[in-house]
Amino acid sequence: MSMSESDKQGFFADESTLAMDDYLIFEYYFESTTDPEAAAAHLCQEQSTAQWKRVDVDEDLRDRFGAKVIDLKVESRLESPSYCLPQDAGKKAHACRVRIAHPHGNFGPKLPNILTAAGGEGAFYSPGIPVIKLMDIEFPDSFLQAFQGPKFGIRGLRGMLGVFDRPLFFGVIKPNIGLSPEPFAELAYQSWLGGVDIAKDDEMLCDVAWSPLSERARLLGAARLKSERETGEKKIYLANITDEVDRLIELHDIAVEAGANAVMVNGMTTGLSAVRMLRKHTRVPLVGHFDFIAPFTQIPFYGVHSKLITKLQRLVGFDVIIMPGFGDRMKTPDDEVLENVQECFKPLGHIKDTLPVPAGSQWAGSTAKLYERLKTIDFAIVPGRGVFGHPMGPKGGGASLRQGWEAVQKGVALEEYAKEHPELKAAIDAFS
Amino acid sequence: MSMSESDKQGFFADESTLAMDDYLIFEYYFESTTDPEAAAAHLCQEQSTAQWKRVDVDEDLRDRFGAKVIDLKVESRLESPSYCLPQDAGKKAHACRVRIAHPHGNFGPKLPNILTAAGGEGAFYSPGIPVIKLMDIEFPDSFLQAFQGPKFGIRGLRGMLGVFDRPLFFGVIKPNIGLSPEPFAELAYQSWLGGVDIAKDDEMLCDVAWSPLSERARLLGAARLKSERETGEKKIYLANITDEVDRLIELHDIAVEAGANAVMVNGMTTGLSAVRMLRKHTRVPLVGHFDFIAPFTQIPFYGVHSKLITKLQRLVGFDVIIMPGFGDRMKTPDDEVLENVQECFKPLGHIKDTLPVPAGSQWAGSTAKLYERLKTIDFAIVPGRGVFGHPMGPKGGGASLRQGWEAVQKGVALEEYAKEHPELKAAIDAFS
Repeated sequence: MSMSESDKQGFFADESTLAMDDYLIFEYYFESTTDPEAAAAHLCQEQSTAQWKRVDVDEDLRDRFGAKVIDLKVESRLESPSYCLPQDAGKKAHACRVRIAHPHGNFGPKLPNILTAAGGEGAFYSPGIPVIKLMDIEFPDSFLQAFQGPKFGIRGLRGMLGVFDRPLFFGVIKPNIGLSPEPFAELAYQSWLGGVDIAKDDEMLCDVAWSPLSERARLLGAARLKSERETGEKKIYLANITDEVDRLIELHDIAVEAGANAVMVNGMTTGLSAVRMLRKHTRVPLVGHFDFIAPFTQIPFYGVHSKLITKLQRLVGFDVIIMPGFGDRMKTPDDEVLENVQECFKPLGHIKDTLPVPAGSQWAGSTAKLYERLKTIDFAIVPGRGVFGHPMGPKGGGASLRQGWEAVQKGVALEEYAKEHPELKAAIDAFS
Repeated sequence: MSMSESDKQGFFADESTLAMDDYLIFEYYFESTTDPEAAAAHLCQEQSTAQWKRVDVDEDLRDRFGAKVIDLKVESRLESPSYCLPQDAGKKAHACRVRIAHPHGNFGPKLPNILTAAGGEGAFYSPGIPVIKLMDIEFPDSFLQAFQGPKFGIRGLRGMLGVFDRPLFFGVIKPNIGLSPEPFAELAYQSWLGGVDIAKDDEMLCDVAWSPLSERARLLGAARLKSERETGEKKIYLANITDEVDRLIELHDIAVEAGANAVMVNGMTTGLSAVRMLRKHTRVPLVGHFDFIAPFTQIPFYGVHSKLITKLQRLVGFDVIIMPGFGDRMKTPDDEVLENVQECFKPLGHIKDTLPVPAGSQWAGSTAKLYERLKTIDFAIVPGRGVFGHPMGPKGGGASLRQGWEAVQKGVALEEYAKEHPELKAAIDAFS
């Protein structure tokens, strides 16, 4: 595993000498128990040209195919790595940030292969690096041309609803599992009447015998149209089509033809590449849910940063990304919630923006707090019990959401506004 | 978030009263900063019937749809959770093991939905549980009927090679990326002549302009047949078809028609559900590589245990699973390597066994060490540089692998056997 000084230098480059359109930039935090430069060179070697020449042939494949350190900073010295096997405990370590230029010609615009390079064996088993977190991947605009991104984006979604001047209101229909389609559709109908924009299936509800997607989408589609006629507003039924990859297109078609006008996929458990496939086919907005992201993003010094997963979810085509929001319940530092929200809006080549939905135990009072922190109306809240466990039922729950926002618009305190609005009053009493 | 005593009891059950064929068992390690029983009840609630009744309706959906604690053990008391946000630091915690019976009728035999239930929002954002690791999922045999598992299994793979009496020898063709198909095929050819059974693409090599899969498989297929004629042995070319989900079937067909007789997929970066789709179609053995598994399995107290991912890889149909092996380089405790190897062989309903390939910086000397630890010949080693960086070239490298095993069979020390076998001698000098 030893590397000579000249071997090492083959994995370093001055950014100004590289044609940066040909590279992705992988950014890592790592802790090395060895010399940081040697560790960073190994990290490049392991993720690209592990062996860069044939035996007895005079060649060097690193120039074109090698990943290259373009920036390395030692941030601090540690008495021991933040995590390691017993044999490394107590070894002094360097906490480092590195930016690596990886030639994308090594794989092309294929997500499974990008993740193999940036988060595969090369990154997580590199010598001298017991601790590593993939923080970000930067893509040149020319590379992004191969990705479609969201079909609708925030503006397209707002256009479907005809709502441009306020946050959007999702409602997770509850009881989330166990009800047959008929009572389930009645709950959605009531919530739409009350003021919910997008009534949705829970991430646990799928195409099952006791609630077949075709029947559910038919009844909720009909209830949606009825609520549109009665309220004069446009509404969305968001069907969860999370299932095996080879059923996604079929379930999209079943749901949309029956009456759903948006579909949800648990992106990480189904696979982001499968979502990219669905994006090529979809006729309706795609919504992502955050299952199975915490296991590899939650530890601050290891794994992958959640903001990168948000970026990738946008890249594969989610028009809406439901993500862990503020508050103790969601176990996510405030800064990280904000970074994830910002990933939805940041310039990303030709890729449209996507609507952030920072989730977690929300109710009518959550809108004002989120608006205050995000300083934009381009977000949604996604209460479950806050609508469907409302003491006055889902119609009252839906109404309380609108009232919560009206108070913000009028600059009136929530409690004050509640005096004249019994649904908001009941919500405050039940959920605050 | 408070739960009454009777609410809590709705999420507990005596295993003997349940029809266990209707349940999966989810096993977790968790650390709770609150009462362990309440924490475990919340864990069940969040992953199943989050709200188990409609407002003003007398019903309880928990009996049929609720997940239920069937065993809860407090293992130890901690002065602080192993990991937490600042607000929980210094809170005393209980380290617990829990077994939860989750009714599989909630989703059916769909992997993305199983992972949503066991490793989604419900598990990782449950109140009072800052630290959690999904350790295992147990499946009743009747449920496993919906899964195909490996098409060939160990016996089928051995049958293709006609090798039943020794470990198998993979070789990762190196330089792993950058060579055009012609010199790449020549390297594989030499390694087959030397003694490699299965010459394979590196996990980083895919279908790219400078090495199109069709051309690569054509040349390596031809070289394979030539080496079979010259050695009188059967050989395998393992092509990496990792790519976007909607190209997997196409690339399988291209590779197999051109001359590959096994295909590899980086399962986690492509998606395990996509592998299950490929399994329905494949004509050749499927090989899994371990990219992107470390980020969520490596931390001992958080995420998902790697043995479960091995089990799931077997379930979706991998005939061979390349996994982190022994040794400092692979950063995996020995016990965990053994657990992963055992997952390949354990009884699993009608599902065939799968060949474990514990990987990491291997060479001719690695076979004896692995054989000693695993006490079976049903494994393979997968050297890269140990064959293709061998001082006598890949033919010498391949020969050294066979000689390393011959020494074991004859009960002769490696160094002793090397006296008469220059390829083994050169391998010892270069790699030990």
